[in-house]
Amino acid sequence: MLSWVNGAPGEQLSVRDRGLAYGDGLFETIAVRGGQIALLARHMARLAQGCQRLSIALDMALMQHELQAFAAQLGDGVAKLTVTRGQGQRGYAPPQPCQPLRILQAAPMPHYPAEHAEQGVRLFPCATRLAEQPLLAGLKHLNRLEQVLARAEWQDADCAEGLMRDCTGRVIEGVYSNLFLVIGGRLLTAELSRCGVAGVMRAEILHQAERLGLPIESRDISHDELLAADEVFLCNSLYGIWPVRALQERYWPVGPLTRKLQAIVRDLLSK
Amino acid sequence: MLSWVNGAPGEQLSVRDRGLAYGDGLFETIAVRGGQIALLARHMARLAQGCQRLSIALDMALMQHELQAFAAQLGDGVAKLTVTRGQGQRGYAPPQPCQPLRILQAAPMPHYPAEHAEQGVRLFPCATRLAEQPLLAGLKHLNRLEQVLARAEWQDADCAEGLMRDCTGRVIEGVYSNLFLVIGGRLLTAELSRCGVAGVMRAEILHQAERLGLPIESRDISHDELLAADEVFLCNSLYGIWPVRALQERYWPVGPLTRKLQAIVRDLLSK
Repeated sequence: MLSWVNGAPGEQLSVRDRGLAYGDGLFETIAVRGGQIALLARHMARLAQGCQRLSIALDMALMQHELQAFAAQLGDGVAKLTVTRGQGQRGYAPPQPCQPLRILQAAPMPHYPAEHAEQGVRLFPCATRLAEQPLLAGLKHLNRLEQVLARAEWQDADCAEGLMRDCTGRVIEGVYSNLFLVIGGRLLTAELSRCGVAGVMRAEILHQAERLGLPIESRDISHDELLAADEVFLCNSLYGIWPVRALQERYWPVGPLTRKLQAIVRDLLSK
Repeated sequence: MLSWVNGAPGEQLSVRDRGLAYGDGLFETIAVRGGQIALLARHMARLAQGCQRLSIALDMALMQHELQAFAAQLGDGVAKLTVTRGQGQRGYAPPQPCQPLRILQAAPMPHYPAEHAEQGVRLFPCATRLAEQPLLAGLKHLNRLEQVLARAEWQDADCAEGLMRDCTGRVIEGVYSNLFLVIGGRLLTAELSRCGVAGVMRAEILHQAERLGLPIESRDISHDELLAADEVFLCNSLYGIWPVRALQERYWPVGPLTRKLQAIVRDLLSK
């Protein structure tokens, strides 16, 4: 598959790169259709925010230019963008100045079963909890061992996603996705100032809900609230929205607000 | 500098390696003198334990064989050993079976100022706190953004190390080292079941203290206990022991127990 390193075809990086040594970098997983990038502005905005918070001096204009050229060549599929702080001498101290590394990797668009979007998915209740680290919360950084451990907890193909909670039991997100509840017509999603990844599709859904005049809350969510919710759905930047139909013994119907937002998001991703 | 990938000279790895994608791996920083590996058994034991906890099926005999051959060729310096889960398809799910990647990198032994060992060092009080994640606590894994952020907090060359506390303020370790206190003749170090790295030199010092019949405690340590300690010292696998002489306005003398253990450890590292 197509792979670029610093704008040129390549599939290798140095063993001295800080992305490997410390997970010192960020990534984006991006849907590409007909050479066009879905949610481009949101991906670039999140990447820029991540670089700012980690003090990685990435040339954002160059990065976007490369991503667009890569997408044009890819046509249809998934573009994974990875940025690291680049190489450094031994030790944690960030090199000054740093020369960030830019990686673009192509993958085919996953073949998700149609029933995931239609009838909804079952959530696996992950025992792995998300640690609270406000300095990294919200970022899609390269320190992802918690997700690796959580995803390794189940092999049952009936569970398309896992539910991740924080160390005090609050409901946060899926392993690969963000989570929304509908309670009494209000849209509710976890506040992500202590842990979790602030997905670009989550941001888009919040924007669309605001446009529709729906009441929205981004705040702490207890497990009891999840169980009491009228509707539950997942989102990410590749599949848009999947209803959640089950978590252990709790079953949910696919609700009207889920369907409405799902249709809006499907249009956005198929443009 | 000398660099091996899977036992052969090499300086590159695939952009699809999970070490880069997720920090899905472990490392060891190892002192080598005259081709001999200091604390070999302890490094191998920690690596094996890390592989077990992350379910990385590393061939430990092969790894040790490679490390010893590498050290023989290096002669004097630092060998950095990195193991990743290897390449995988897109997504967090660990590939079955996995083919771990083995990397060995050489660096010169750092030229530490002699006064660090003699008069002691000043600690910088890091604002970056360690998140609590029991599933990863103790491991020297590749998710090290907290250390990167902590080390970026100070440029003052007068501070040779930074003090890291957990999110509730307990005293845990240095950015590159473990921390010991002496209080009333007892040796005290942080218990590492929620966060922190269980250093091989920490393990060696606990062993040596036990051999000397010193009372030892590994438990939670408050900031007040640190400030009230009679002696404070740092340790890691390259420099052995450095006394701590200052943290902000608090000054410590270099105490007798610190000197005693420092001499023992110096002998071990110079063998």
